[in-house]
Amino acid sequence: MLIACIQMEPLIGETARNVARSLDFARQAAERGARLVVLPELANTGYVFETRAEAEALAETVPSGPTVAAWSRLCEELDLHLVAGIAEKAGDKLFNSAVLIGPGGCVGVYRKMHLWGDEKKVFTPGDLPFPVYDTPIGQIAMAICYDGWFPETYRLYALNGARLVCVPTNWVPMPGQPDDRSAMANTLVMAAAHTNGLVIACADRVGVERGQPFEGQSLIVDKTGWPLAGPASRTNEEIILADITLEPRKGIGADNDVLSDRRTDIYAEMLGLDRTDNP
Amino acid sequence: MLIACIQMEPLIGETARNVARSLDFARQAAERGARLVVLPELANTGYVFETRAEAEALAETVPSGPTVAAWSRLCEELDLHLVAGIAEKAGDKLFNSAVLIGPGGCVGVYRKMHLWGDEKKVFTPGDLPFPVYDTPIGQIAMAICYDGWFPETYRLYALNGARLVCVPTNWVPMPGQPDDRSAMANTLVMAAAHTNGLVIACADRVGVERGQPFEGQSLIVDKTGWPLAGPASRTNEEIILADITLEPRKGIGADNDVLSDRRTDIYAEMLGLDRTDNP
Repeated sequence: MLIACIQMEPLIGETARNVARSLDFARQAAERGARLVVLPELANTGYVFETRAEAEALAETVPSGPTVAAWSRLCEELDLHLVAGIAEKAGDKLFNSAVLIGPGGCVGVYRKMHLWGDEKKVFTPGDLPFPVYDTPIGQIAMAICYDGWFPETYRLYALNGARLVCVPTNWVPMPGQPDDRSAMANTLVMAAAHTNGLVIACADRVGVERGQPFEGQSLIVDKTGWPLAGPASRTNEEIILADITLEPRKGIGADNDVLSDRRTDIYAEMLGLDRTDNP
Repeated sequence: MLIACIQMEPLIGETARNVARSLDFARQAAERGARLVVLPELANTGYVFETRAEAEALAETVPSGPTVAAWSRLCEELDLHLVAGIAEKAGDKLFNSAVLIGPGGCVGVYRKMHLWGDEKKVFTPGDLPFPVYDTPIGQIAMAICYDGWFPETYRLYALNGARLVCVPTNWVPMPGQPDDRSAMANTLVMAAAHTNGLVIACADRVGVERGQPFEGQSLIVDKTGWPLAGPASRTNEEIILADITLEPRKGIGADNDVLSDRRTDIYAEMLGLDRTDNP
């Protein structure tokens, strides 16, 4: 099954333009054979909000808002699945969310669990415990950007049966990054794929927004941990495509399966200690 | 502080020769300024035991056996710390262990938590819950080889205050490894260091033993996740050295610390589910 990640540059506040551009890219990817398309984090609004009010004015309800409606029409027309980052308004709360849309409409939503930097001033932390969605093309989960700094995210998805994790992201530079190496985010994704037997598809944005540069380098990683496509460039809008297989998970060796080899006896004891320290 | 990893080739069953060779290498590293030296997994015995009886005949009590005594004498003489893999006999059990030795003798032991392949026929899984040892040179923990496939290992060490994790290892080739990339094990170590703010020092073995090839590529990784030394070659015995700083852990950004940003509320709920499934 061919899947695509769209590396694009949303412009802050220009929702109609951003959605139109995302539809163009998704259509191009589908014409090249993609059955599933992944867009960046906050693909419709841009990322660097100056105030919570600015974000609130741009956020939409899910699935009833106009952006999900537009993405859903394309998915219906092209028999496509799509994962995309969106600013979600739910009552008086805002979430940094991702939606999974299929040919029949919105399948599910993920709300970013781990908020980065000024996101904490705008968004409420996610309240949906790592949902895995059963679709005709496989067991799909979602994570967003800084969620990838928490190996817990991928581990819990693997334990819950996910085969593919789609990652809308807006990666920012990390300290110590050598110029000649791909972003540390790429390393984290490879490690997560390998240690959990997951295919992971990351769509990053590019550009500089209100002084904040982004990393690009979108990539699609096989369950062995090695890239199938990408990393894409640091600066250019582009589509990356990979042919993936979502076969049943199997062990890493004749006598070993990473999930069943976990020492849950010890982890639970130690997590218990941690809960006391960090309630 | 300068530290060293010794990439060497133990020969199966030749304990006296292996220990003598490890002492030579450790002395060379100390002469080059190393205050701490890390040796590979099962550095005294070799790795591929044909039977449990073969392993039992080679295993020693800790700290009273002759190998720990020999390593301890060197540490006392050179005011050195040393971490090394050893086959440990404790009553009627065998453990794939690592010892931490200082100038005053044996400081502590770690027993491999996650056993790989035929190790399950020889060793008992570790029963010491991820100990962190407070030494004059810093908070030191140990992990062995396949333990690194479990992000839980490093996360629990970071939560318990470790600054440096020493990894005696016998890495074997993983499926899908491209010829032009460093071992996937290197990627796992970089990700673990970055997501936990840990310095990690891995001493691998080289050579082919009873048909089993090993990966070499020992490396020392900074808390940013980027290598300070190595990866070493795939095939040659060598010493790698790095100057490390074990300063107090700090956040990854102005508003973010990976450990305090963890969603322990959600993880605990989901680990609870897992304990029911995998008791």
